[in-house]
Amino acid sequence: MSPLSSRHIVLARHIPGRPEPEHFRLEPVEVGEPGEGELRVRTLFASVDPGTLSRLGGVDSYAPAVKLGEVIGSAAVGEVLDSRDARYAVGDVVAGGWGWREHAVVSAKGLRKVERGAESLSAELGVLGIPGLTAYFGILELGRPKEGETVLVSSAAGAVGSVAGQIAKRQGARVVGIAGGAEKCRWVKDALGFDAVIDYRSETDLGAAIRRECPRGVDVYLDNVGGTMLDTTLACMALRGRVVVSGLVADYGVPPEQRAGLKNTPFLIIQRLRMEGFVVLDYFARFGEARVALRGWLQDGTLKHREHVAEGLESAPALFAGLFRGENFGRAVVRVG
Amino acid sequence: MSPLSSRHIVLARHIPGRPEPEHFRLEPVEVGEPGEGELRVRTLFASVDPGTLSRLGGVDSYAPAVKLGEVIGSAAVGEVLDSRDARYAVGDVVAGGWGWREHAVVSAKGLRKVERGAESLSAELGVLGIPGLTAYFGILELGRPKEGETVLVSSAAGAVGSVAGQIAKRQGARVVGIAGGAEKCRWVKDALGFDAVIDYRSETDLGAAIRRECPRGVDVYLDNVGGTMLDTTLACMALRGRVVVSGLVADYGVPPEQRAGLKNTPFLIIQRLRMEGFVVLDYFARFGEARVALRGWLQDGTLKHREHVAEGLESAPALFAGLFRGENFGRAVVRVG
Repeated sequence: MSPLSSRHIVLARHIPGRPEPEHFRLEPVEVGEPGEGELRVRTLFASVDPGTLSRLGGVDSYAPAVKLGEVIGSAAVGEVLDSRDARYAVGDVVAGGWGWREHAVVSAKGLRKVERGAESLSAELGVLGIPGLTAYFGILELGRPKEGETVLVSSAAGAVGSVAGQIAKRQGARVVGIAGGAEKCRWVKDALGFDAVIDYRSETDLGAAIRRECPRGVDVYLDNVGGTMLDTTLACMALRGRVVVSGLVADYGVPPEQRAGLKNTPFLIIQRLRMEGFVVLDYFARFGEARVALRGWLQDGTLKHREHVAEGLESAPALFAGLFRGENFGRAVVRVG
Repeated sequence: MSPLSSRHIVLARHIPGRPEPEHFRLEPVEVGEPGEGELRVRTLFASVDPGTLSRLGGVDSYAPAVKLGEVIGSAAVGEVLDSRDARYAVGDVVAGGWGWREHAVVSAKGLRKVERGAESLSAELGVLGIPGLTAYFGILELGRPKEGETVLVSSAAGAVGSVAGQIAKRQGARVVGIAGGAEKCRWVKDALGFDAVIDYRSETDLGAAIRRECPRGVDVYLDNVGGTMLDTTLACMALRGRVVVSGLVADYGVPPEQRAGLKNTPFLIIQRLRMEGFVVLDYFARFGEARVALRGWLQDGTLKHREHVAEGLESAPALFAGLFRGENFGRAVVRVG
């Protein structure tokens, strides 16, 4: 074992609004040898997550802010090059959260071994990773749709929304998605089997479109977007509707005074709504159970997913910036190895 | 029995913003004889409720909008003048919802008999009426403070807030109120026994004041105000805090585009907040149980309340308009009889 020449991506400038590639810097780095209880890994895939933006503005959020010069955090899958932990052998594949690095030395704690199964390894970052788990617990624990209820999902072609809608369908709900562009909408309806889909780019009145596709109101809204889309939907909820707030992409990096703001708050009372924010890591103790279910549905072909794979760690900043323009189609990951 | 010359107050003009007395009209009316199953009553007290404004703009809310020329709804207590229902005798005192009328013919259904007990009859409209019940279910069913948790109550000198804070104290919570003006604040702290009180009129930074008085964050916020006060408090909530939205006085009569809007929505996720709107009538089946508890606390002296009584039905519009300037101190009622 000896130091390894590698590269990683750090935060070059705090991001006050929308991200651009120049907010990041690709740097060479020497990756040392693992200590006791550590592994050295070669990254195969790293995730590119919209939620990361909430940590790049220099202000602490549900996770501490990333400092200038710090490596960007993300989920990652890699191959073990050197192991100083008895549970892992060279050649094993592990998943962890070591971020945008081509190689890393990581503690064996907090890793999990990935079986090379029927799914691609990148699925560990998407449908079997944080997005899939967010969908699973967001629908089954918070939204809890009953048979025949209407579930609305924003970012329906995205990593969370696509899985959430399919899980809601399994529960017997009528599922309506919101997505941007004809191609995504077609996939959501035809491949994922949503009952209806709303193309927010082609609708002039989103509220009217939601009421048209959800004529009895929305019983469960799983929201990743926030902002005006959330506000509009509040006015379309059914009695005792549940709004599950799993992400607020529209608000990330936007100073409070510039946000659209929720103005339809009277509907909270009128319709007796419950609006709940959640962080999937709170369900960590149940991730195993959820992954067994998700993997089973993947393997029997009833759960579809889609990835947007860019080549090389260096492509991560541009892919990240594109997330906020809706440019990705499917779970965004970079293939590093 | 013969028709009775009486007066009532109707909606003269829809109210687009804040109410003024000229939006209402006092009219003479002949009140006929009760039919089978009906009573004729003489009003003793009628309530003046901020929530009524949500129905006076011409737009349906959680209750249908009041039409021009219709009598303003409210809770009322009255004496039975004529009875065509075997359960009620002349001279009985009943509570119901017949509104701003000096006399009324009402169905015996939906009335309840009031015992002339230790409390004043007007208490039936306040601490034993909808406001007291809202406080009871808002705290005990939705907020559910645990011992040692911090409960923040807006409109703490008001009909809901004053009772809510005292019930939260009974649950062992640390209770902080927000009220306007030194006199109200003194009453909330000294007479009601809140642990601390914030005078929103004298604080330049309400958020800083909330953080000062709630150093471990707010576990339960019972809100009657909405608007900027709700938005500010969202940023001061503790992990897994519950926001109980029982009224949004700041938003009543304000068109959505002119509302301040909630901009601190990221705290929903950061702190895993649950925000829930409720209408106390949903707990109708349990009103009896709640009144037994509230009456018991009144009688043993552990529940304090305060009323702002104006004389004569004709004083209702000005009292109503004053509610939105914080002019009342205690539950607003008019003594009619």
